[in-house]
Amino acid sequence: MKYFEDIAVGEVWNLGRYEVTAEEIMAFAGKYDPQPFHTDPEAAKQSFFGGLIASGWHTNAMLMRLLADTIRRQELASVGAPGIDRCRWLAPVRPGDTLHARTTVAAARRSRSRPYGLVTCHTEVRNQDDATVCLMEGIGLYACRPEAEDAA
Amino acid sequence: MKYFEDIAVGEVWNLGRYEVTAEEIMAFAGKYDPQPFHTDPEAAKQSFFGGLIASGWHTNAMLMRLLADTIRRQELASVGAPGIDRCRWLAPVRPGDTLHARTTVAAARRSRSRPYGLVTCHTEVRNQDDATVCLMEGIGLYACRPEAEDAA
Repeated sequence: MKYFEDIAVGEVWNLGRYEVTAEEIMAFAGKYDPQPFHTDPEAAKQSFFGGLIASGWHTNAMLMRLLADTIRRQELASVGAPGIDRCRWLAPVRPGDTLHARTTVAAARRSRSRPYGLVTCHTEVRNQDDATVCLMEGIGLYACRPEAEDAA
Repeated sequence: MKYFEDIAVGEVWNLGRYEVTAEEIMAFAGKYDPQPFHTDPEAAKQSFFGGLIASGWHTNAMLMRLLADTIRRQELASVGAPGIDRCRWLAPVRPGDTLHARTTVAAARRSRSRPYGLVTCHTEVRNQDDATVCLMEGIGLYACRPEAEDAA
């Protein structure tokens, strides 16, 4: 298990790739963001974006899936997240895109009151053309290494 | 249609209510945030949270649904969103919760280069016990009133 103490500022995590489909864009948006440029390919052609695009919240959800898979793969002691400091959707995410994401550990501090540490991560999501589609400054909460293990 | 010019700083939008179910918490998390405290009621009992909780990204998606319904109801000329300035998940969202959300228009400025306006909204999501579960500072993009209509 990788605890708070094992996470170093400057560390880079390659989060992997996510294939975006029109079906998933419309399914997510139909439930959570039913605006025509997310749900209706014909109406989307007439919009600002010229075609169907993913909800920014869907982009963030896909990013979270990549992060959750990374947490599992690295056996990170994730215990939740207090929030986001900043997020920008910089370019549209469209059907057929392949997203890839990379996270840099930007800051880490131990909680004053509890056996947890707060880790600020800067994440960049790019598409297959290497265009940045999303920048995210998120905060994660990680368990500290149990004291018995420190003594061992 | 309600355009950028029709949105006043200080305006408050009641976004309505959202009923949270265990099924939806697990379905969202199974796809986008498969951590045990979001997907497995038994494992969640042993976690920091003492029971199943919604992914923060699911809370944000439910909030977006309330906002999208409000955009449609108010006929707001929404043309997308550049991002989020700050988001905090302050209390767990659990099965059976009823969320209600309220948005205050905090700032509005016209784009220098395009016929759109940027509107910063401060949104608060509370549960049935009036506990604040989420605070969100989001930015929306709204179309300006067409000039022909200004002249009419």
